[in-house]
Amino acid sequence: MASSRKVIELFYDVVSPYSWLGFEVMCRYRNVWNIDLKLRPAFLGGIMQGSGNKPPGQVPNKFLYMTTDLHRLAQYFQVPISPPADPFEAMFEKGSLSAMRFVAAVQEREVGGDKQVEQVSRELWMRIWSQDKDITQPASLSEAAMKAGLSASEVEELLKLSTSKEIKDKLKRSTQEALDHRCGSGHQYQYIHFFHYLTLSLYSFIQAFGFPLAVCHVNGKAEVFFGSDRFELIAHCIGEKWMGPQPAAAKL
Amino acid sequence: MASSRKVIELFYDVVSPYSWLGFEVMCRYRNVWNIDLKLRPAFLGGIMQGSGNKPPGQVPNKFLYMTTDLHRLAQYFQVPISPPADPFEAMFEKGSLSAMRFVAAVQEREVGGDKQVEQVSRELWMRIWSQDKDITQPASLSEAAMKAGLSASEVEELLKLSTSKEIKDKLKRSTQEALDHRCGSGHQYQYIHFFHYLTLSLYSFIQAFGFPLAVCHVNGKAEVFFGSDRFELIAHCIGEKWMGPQPAAAKL
Repeated sequence: MASSRKVIELFYDVVSPYSWLGFEVMCRYRNVWNIDLKLRPAFLGGIMQGSGNKPPGQVPNKFLYMTTDLHRLAQYFQVPISPPADPFEAMFEKGSLSAMRFVAAVQEREVGGDKQVEQVSRELWMRIWSQDKDITQPASLSEAAMKAGLSASEVEELLKLSTSKEIKDKLKRSTQEALDHRCGSGHQYQYIHFFHYLTLSLYSFIQAFGFPLAVCHVNGKAEVFFGSDRFELIAHCIGEKWMGPQPAAAKL
Repeated sequence: MASSRKVIELFYDVVSPYSWLGFEVMCRYRNVWNIDLKLRPAFLGGIMQGSGNKPPGQVPNKFLYMTTDLHRLAQYFQVPISPPADPFEAMFEKGSLSAMRFVAAVQEREVGGDKQVEQVSRELWMRIWSQDKDITQPASLSEAAMKAGLSASEVEELLKLSTSKEIKDKLKRSTQEALDHRCGSGHQYQYIHFFHYLTLSLYSFIQAFGFPLAVCHVNGKAEVFFGSDRFELIAHCIGEKWMGPQPAAAKL
């Protein structure tokens, strides 16, 4: 039985609200689909730098649309996203490096599953993307971890571990692995020229190289999906059924 | 009964392959959902210019991903998309202005429905995005229209009409209407600053202002959806059920 389970790796960073949507949906489906979900905390700042992604021009209609889109998705997915009052400070001045190192440390120490990784990640998202609270200070990480059920002594050890070279390197490696997951087959390189022009002035659906990133291992091949809007295709890819963002409710 | 039908306007241009996906899905659902689908042929070139959308930087991973993404979507949606050999020439040197004026002319003359608009649009997509054929010359437009079931004399009249000021203005108006459909509520303006920075380095799902664009009229409010990946949300918005890209097959 175990050999038929499809492995899905989910790369994410708690600084990204769209990652939160992807994370909650995949955590719900891990008990519904015959999959082995591997949570892959990584560092989005490193992804953006490593992929050479550039800021898009300032297009007012686009930003207006994204606001509405995120709000609608959060409601539909039932994830309590509420932007921080000063998102620039929260995301770029403060950032998520210490938080993601802490999650990596939790993952390094956890045995027999990833419940702690899941719950600590969720508590961190709750802080930055729902309650407008800090996620950079040791006291903030500690509070999130305690809420997730870890003991004070565990937290103390994890805080120490999270600043070690071992954990810094681990997060770097995970981030690099996400960067190295390019798309499926080899013949696509011939289309680079084509898609350059496609993005220049055609359409509308431009996926920056970012998070969340789901890597589905199917028949020895890695299929890569970006964003929080390809679940139906992911289901199709792994031979499962998409039942909307709340599969438990769908089953009732 | 008629008053309970939700109106969905679908703005599209045959130069855009993602528009084709959206068009086919909405044409399938017009017989499944209690909707009044209004096809809105428009000119994407005018949208890109009018919205101030800028070309993104050249990010190789992004282009690789888009290639795979479009290929997977086309297969899953069962729309026979196959990129032209020289997409740059097809899309930018030749473009779709005469084709979309022709579709606007077909719409201007059609009475009692939009079957001709639907079929002519589909035949034009088949030419540019499946068979690598021209869509700029009168002979090309004529061939597409004849395949869609129009007579030679009808086509002749439409070709003449398509270069008239009346039709040029009609296409301009439709394009401007698409541009004027910004997003729902008013309070979102406060988030412009926020989303500017969000797109600067966060995430992953950047919607250029482009096509397809679906405008759902619900309870006196216009809800705007870009792209070919929000059908599930559209269904939710209008109180209908999403059954995948092939609802007829789903019903069997």
